[in-house]
Amino acid sequence: MRSVVPDYLTDVLGDVESDTSGEPAGYIPELAAADPERLAAVFATVDGTLHGAGDVDAAFTIQSISKPFVYAMALSDRGFDRVLAQVGVEPSGEAFNEISLESETGRPRNPMINAGAITTHSLAGAENLTPVERVDRVVQGLSAFAGRQLTVDETVCASEMENAHRNLAIAHMLRSHGILTEDPRAVVDGYIRQCSVLVTARDLAMMAATLANRGMNPLSNEQVVDGSVVRQVLSVMATCGMYDAAGDWATQVGIPAKSGVAGGLIGALPGQLGIATFSPRLDRHGNSVRGVSLFERFSSDMGLHVMEVPPAARAVVRSNRVRGGGADATRVLRLQGGIRFAGAERIVRELVESAPSEPRVVLDVSLVHSIDDVARRMLLEVARRLTLDGHEVYLVDPEMMIPDPDPGDGGRITVIDVARADGATDNHDRQPERTP
Amino acid sequence: MRSVVPDYLTDVLGDVESDTSGEPAGYIPELAAADPERLAAVFATVDGTLHGAGDVDAAFTIQSISKPFVYAMALSDRGFDRVLAQVGVEPSGEAFNEISLESETGRPRNPMINAGAITTHSLAGAENLTPVERVDRVVQGLSAFAGRQLTVDETVCASEMENAHRNLAIAHMLRSHGILTEDPRAVVDGYIRQCSVLVTARDLAMMAATLANRGMNPLSNEQVVDGSVVRQVLSVMATCGMYDAAGDWATQVGIPAKSGVAGGLIGALPGQLGIATFSPRLDRHGNSVRGVSLFERFSSDMGLHVMEVPPAARAVVRSNRVRGGGADATRVLRLQGGIRFAGAERIVRELVESAPSEPRVVLDVSLVHSIDDVARRMLLEVARRLTLDGHEVYLVDPEMMIPDPDPGDGGRITVIDVARADGATDNHDRQPERTP
Amino acid sequence: MRSVVPDYLTDVLGDVESDTSGEPAGYIPELAAADPERLAAVFATVDGTLHGAGDVDAAFTIQSISKPFVYAMALSDRGFDRVLAQVGVEPSGEAFNEISLESETGRPRNPMINAGAITTHSLAGAENLTPVERVDRVVQGLSAFAGRQLTVDETVCASEMENAHRNLAIAHMLRSHGILTEDPRAVVDGYIRQCSVLVTARDLAMMAATLANRGMNPLSNEQVVDGSVVRQVLSVMATCGMYDAAGDWATQVGIPAKSGVAGGLIGALPGQLGIATFSPRLDRHGNSVRGVSLFERFSSDMGLHVMEVPPAARAVVRSNRVRGGGADATRVLRLQGGIRFAGAERIVRELVESAPSEPRVVLDVSLVHSIDDVARRMLLEVARRLTLDGHEVYLVDPEMMIPDPDPGDGGRITVIDVARADGATDNHDRQPERTP
Amino acid sequence: MRSVVPDYLTDVLGDVESDTSGEPAGYIPELAAADPERLAAVFATVDGTLHGAGDVDAAFTIQSISKPFVYAMALSDRGFDRVLAQVGVEPSGEAFNEISLESETGRPRNPMINAGAITTHSLAGAENLTPVERVDRVVQGLSAFAGRQLTVDETVCASEMENAHRNLAIAHMLRSHGILTEDPRAVVDGYIRQCSVLVTARDLAMMAATLANRGMNPLSNEQVVDGSVVRQVLSVMATCGMYDAAGDWATQVGIPAKSGVAGGLIGALPGQLGIATFSPRLDRHGNSVRGVSLFERFSSDMGLHVMEVPPAARAVVRSNRVRGGGADATRVLRLQGGIRFAGAERIVRELVESAPSEPRVVLDVSLVHSIDDVARRMLLEVARRLTLDGHEVYLVDPEMMIPDPDPGDGGRITVIDVARADGATDNHDRQPERTP
Repeated sequence: MRSVVPDYLTDVLGDVESDTSGEPAGYIPELAAADPERLAAVFATVDGTLHGAGDVDAAFTIQSISKPFVYAMALSDRGFDRVLAQVGVEPSGEAFNEISLESETGRPRNPMINAGAITTHSLAGAENLTPVERVDRVVQGLSAFAGRQLTVDETVCASEMENAHRNLAIAHMLRSHGILTEDPRAVVDGYIRQCSVLVTARDLAMMAATLANRGMNPLSNEQVVDGSVVRQVLSVMATCGMYDAAGDWATQVGIPAKSGVAGGLIGALPGQLGIATFSPRLDRHGNSVRGVSLFERFSSDMGLHVMEVPPAARAVVRSNRVRGGGADATRVLRLQGGIRFAGAERIVRELVESAPSEPRVVLDVSLVHSIDDVARRMLLEVARRLTLDGHEVYLVDPEMMIPDPDPGDGGRITVIDVARADGATDNHDRQPERTP
Repeated sequence: MRSVVPDYLTDVLGDVESDTSGEPAGYIPELAAADPERLAAVFATVDGTLHGAGDVDAAFTIQSISKPFVYAMALSDRGFDRVLAQVGVEPSGEAFNEISLESETGRPRNPMINAGAITTHSLAGAENLTPVERVDRVVQGLSAFAGRQLTVDETVCASEMENAHRNLAIAHMLRSHGILTEDPRAVVDGYIRQCSVLVTARDLAMMAATLANRGMNPLSNEQVVDGSVVRQVLSVMATCGMYDAAGDWATQVGIPAKSGVAGGLIGALPGQLGIATFSPRLDRHGNSVRGVSLFERFSSDMGLHVMEVPPAARAVVRSNRVRGGGADATRVLRLQGGIRFAGAERIVRELVESAPSEPRVVLDVSLVHSIDDVARRMLLEVARRLTLDGHEVYLVDPEMMIPDPDPGDGGRITVIDVARADGATDNHDRQPERTP
Repeated sequence: MRSVVPDYLTDVLGDVESDTSGEPAGYIPELAAADPERLAAVFATVDGTLHGAGDVDAAFTIQSISKPFVYAMALSDRGFDRVLAQVGVEPSGEAFNEISLESETGRPRNPMINAGAITTHSLAGAENLTPVERVDRVVQGLSAFAGRQLTVDETVCASEMENAHRNLAIAHMLRSHGILTEDPRAVVDGYIRQCSVLVTARDLAMMAATLANRGMNPLSNEQVVDGSVVRQVLSVMATCGMYDAAGDWATQVGIPAKSGVAGGLIGALPGQLGIATFSPRLDRHGNSVRGVSLFERFSSDMGLHVMEVPPAARAVVRSNRVRGGGADATRVLRLQGGIRFAGAERIVRELVESAPSEPRVVLDVSLVHSIDDVARRMLLEVARRLTLDGHEVYLVDPEMMIPDPDPGDGGRITVIDVARADGATDNHDRQPERTP
Repeated sequence: MRSVVPDYLTDVLGDVESDTSGEPAGYIPELAAADPERLAAVFATVDGTLHGAGDVDAAFTIQSISKPFVYAMALSDRGFDRVLAQVGVEPSGEAFNEISLESETGRPRNPMINAGAITTHSLAGAENLTPVERVDRVVQGLSAFAGRQLTVDETVCASEMENAHRNLAIAHMLRSHGILTEDPRAVVDGYIRQCSVLVTARDLAMMAATLANRGMNPLSNEQVVDGSVVRQVLSVMATCGMYDAAGDWATQVGIPAKSGVAGGLIGALPGQLGIATFSPRLDRHGNSVRGVSLFERFSSDMGLHVMEVPPAARAVVRSNRVRGGGADATRVLRLQGGIRFAGAERIVRELVESAPSEPRVVLDVSLVHSIDDVARRMLLEVARRLTLDGHEVYLVDPEMMIPDPDPGDGGRITVIDVARADGATDNHDRQPERTP
């Protein structure tokens, strides 16, 4: 049997193939000469699987798609305060090459426009790097996101440098405001090298998947940047990634995304997957025509919109029963599914409404498949309160969903295995790894 | 035992209570006279539970918080095409009362600024409503979101009308561009009545929860607007809801939100909960000072940011085993958790890699707690392909997660109960409702 | 013999007649229905002579050409400080109907754009006029400039009022900023009546000639506004009169001007003449196409550009001679031409360089045809200094160019007739009117 | 006797001396270190006389005051079409260092803002000059305006170059639009050299006087640029010279002007004089505080405002008499004063209204002190028409005001001396130089 995903991708590529509208970027000969028929789409899951169709291994320059990744590096290397002092996070509603500096401070509006990206480049790596060292840090960082060593296309780089008047204008303007403190020409040179890194659609999908996977590359398992950085980067991609079409994209596609002038386009679905497409013809916003169509299809076909409300989950409280009686009476709550704040609130409520009088309370999380920090803390707090109310609290947690079950402050939890919990035999596929 | 959520809310209110910075809106006496110490926060879950602290029943005017809800009505009543032709979806990066019309067309940039909201008001209800009928449709619509009958504060309304010069300016400008086709004065009058609807923090939380619950009021179970409308509304709230601080909010809070000049502030977490706060003192952007602080706390304390990548879920494939042998050999995949595209992809992959040779394949979804459309379609397609490859495909689905399991086009699925599936006894709390 | 001026005007009209580009204003039926072939040009000299060609008596509405005249009334009626506090004088570089308010204060950028003109209308007449009284003051003021009673075209007025959405928008915006303090609707109504006053090209030329003649109507001799008001009005016309084409006009035509949407166009050459043209087809700036061509012709054919440097005048010192000798020795300076600062400086210098030792100094201004205030004061100061140096100073001034020749502060001037001045007989056409 | 002008200047300097508000430009050490107490004012008449007070010989850098002069050179060297294609003439309403490019074309709004001035620098001299040759052409041109060899302050120049980030930004932006076609760095270097030319208040007054004198330096008598160039330059100074305070300046001062950041300020009164002031402290617009005050005084004290309507001149027709009778009857018109269009019109009208029946008509212009082209052409045309009507036309013109009195096309004029004209003896100071 063949997988449905590659078939799906092949079908969708077939649907957009006939659209030859738009033009490849023409401002340097290397981009103008790109084969406009090239077309690729790749999905990379957060567990590292890649599905692709079309020219998935064709190499092209990353261009502006480097921006969110280098922004991630800057946030990691210099800290949020320093970066936010020099680059804002507000959508500009303007084209990519608008200067868009805040009038008083000269701070670029966001890191996705060139002014912000040039500043961001200068903030990658430690404070006192030489220009060469900084480019090296950027290329290594992009390589870490991609999970393989990337290189610079020197021909494109040289050609871009000859046509860098607008970027030089921006960099000198930033220098005049003190936003850049280094030689503007050197920073633009470094920025252009950053944009000239060669990637394939496959690389870009893996880079996007690294964002979707909280900053850990799904194949190398390298934690490239941490989760708070990823959250910032995805937020900025969501509001500023598609330039002056930000609102259209946010409503119609709803996937944090970034496009590049060589025809690449990436999207990252938090917790699900990275997506990349490649097709060189651009629309008037500078986004790949067929890339945009592909993302519209992906979003509507597969419900990938971040504002798509997920279907109502089955109740997290699978059962709430009393086993035994008298001094042996045990209240058993079997929980299931993924538990975040709303689920934890439901569990707490179940317990409050039950007002359990039984001496023992068992929380069974063996059917729970994920639980986040706030939910974990809420369950521990509930356990603490139950302890203070005179209950003994037990936890059935064969897969260690709650790794360190100490409620603190007068609370106590005893971890037990499922057999002791309710006297029944649950048909676990795996054995409990811990016993009290 | 007391629930942890109200305690948490009480704690957080206590933390922000001492912040007396900002000023209540002063442009009309009624708002200027508001008790600036009023403070409330309410959570409403998508199953209809409310947790609140502070002045949760204090009534105040809804003001701009009406905007997303009336936008939802307009989308419902007139359709997306008509509404989008007259109101854009791009963030304006400007204050709420900027005119912000597109220069050529006069189309307001988005429905969250006054120009867009005034236009949106005129698009609520059917085409030929009288001004009175339109206001009635709007008040009934807001009431449906809230789940109780709301009323207009006539005193505030009259006072606002006397100070409506800027809104009248905007409406006449819209009329001059043909965006409004009715009497500008009547539309502004209706818009002001819309803004003067009285609500409590409790109402607002329920209205937000209705958005978080795909448009169905969690208590009345009325489907107020459909899911595609909600997705559009949440997307626009995410990018345009907080005016010129949109990027700050998107990065730091990350909850689609809307504020009102009377001190209200709502947020909607898709699939989880609606949040409302109330505190009349405003910052320079016109947002409630303590309301913004509360949302920052909620977001960071509880991981409610929409770009927060959820923790890695346990594998959706709980087990993949072969029972029996020879002609009776049965491959059984037990699935679990919530399945969206990425999970379905994983299941497909498991089957492709297994390359099952057994005559029978069983998909057991009894531990699956949610599954979305695309995942459902992918599983059906896999079943179809397995049928075409010569397998018999069985589905164990005691809770009807896949309501109409017909793969079509040559595929066939037999629904069975769990006992037949693998000869084991699963300790189901509920009995399978169907047998083949 | 026929005058050359009407012939010239007829010739020039003939040259532009074939240009049928542009369109009459189409926003109300009355303007759209204007006969587009109408064409007129009129010159009115500062002594009240009119030369015209074409449809000089065709009536049309004054529209925006009323703006500078009503600005003049506001300055006269309320004083410069009050008017400048509410309307700026900076060119906006924008189209006539742009709102163009200063961002902080809401003050319109200048009185030639609609926002400024609406505000200016509200400042005409005394503070507490009723709307009807204000319109009356405006119509009477325009009539005074024209030198005949003008009337309002009620049909155009009614039609404009129905299409006044943009002006109503502007007025409400001004009201919201406190720039207007009256009912915006009433002010717009009055402003539209102002714009609907019927004029002919002949009227407009006379109105412009009144500006060119320091505010005195050349025929009625009514001093409509004073000279300082005229200077302000002409300055603002020069920088803001032609909207977004201000710079083009200032360089290519160089005549302070104002156009109206009904096809009128006026220009005022300080001290020389008023010009008016009429042709209804407008260019994209809203200026009459053939009107602009006519003014370009007038400017280049006749050197009417205000920055045209006049040809070097013959020396103001016609002769500097000594008559007689010894105690009778008399130094006689015969002056000629027009004397402003530069001429007076030349005369002073002549005297300083001559270092006259003669007991008597005669200044003969009988050939001087004009002398301004500063020059007069400088000559008196020179006379004072000569007195203090021990000279007797005599003035020959048969036409009373220096009406009150008292140098003050120790100076003394004796007015004599020419015969006594130098013993020669000057062939005066008129007799000296004074003897000492 | 001492001249009143220096005394006046000394008085006015004394009045403004106590104003120590503002700050010298601080962006480079050389300017920051300027002695802020320096104060000078100089008047230079169109016949080359200088009157000054204060530090008239203190040297400082010309800075932006070079802009109108280099604009004049560009217009001379490349022609109007070429220069206007690359630099506009519209006021920008913005600060001097705003980029202010037209959005489509990238054309700077006007030559007085830096973007326009940098472009203008590149247009001085012939097309293919090297950067060194271009700077040489510019320095020689400025020297020609000043009437002495000027030099560059190399220290200021070097320091400016180190702080030229904003100008480099502008130049690269212009290069990216193709407005500049040369190396942006070289153009900025040349522009900075242009701005670093050392001048005194005396030099600046003479440069301004050259503009006031139709482009001819009053001392050297070199025609530096022609009259049409001067008209363009003065027009642009009038509308764009004082940056964002253009309207204030145009109304309150009304003298075409230009300021420099080193504290210089010039004004040019067409046909009258050039003015320069020097005082280093600047207001927030970047204009010299005391310089602005001085110009306000000059304008109001001396009626130098270009929109000041000159006092009504004495009638140009001094007398209109008939001498003799019958076949000898002669109509004699004695004209006087300065004659431009309006005066010529008056003369033509006098003749038309007289409807002369006498065989001979004498036009006596011996008391006319100036006459411009259009007036000359009108008088010749009148003479032609009189000839065609059967009159003999005579001209009395001892000073050759009408150098080549040929009406052409059937007209004929006989030049005679005054004695023959009317049989009377006019007491001319000079003898007629021609006889028929």
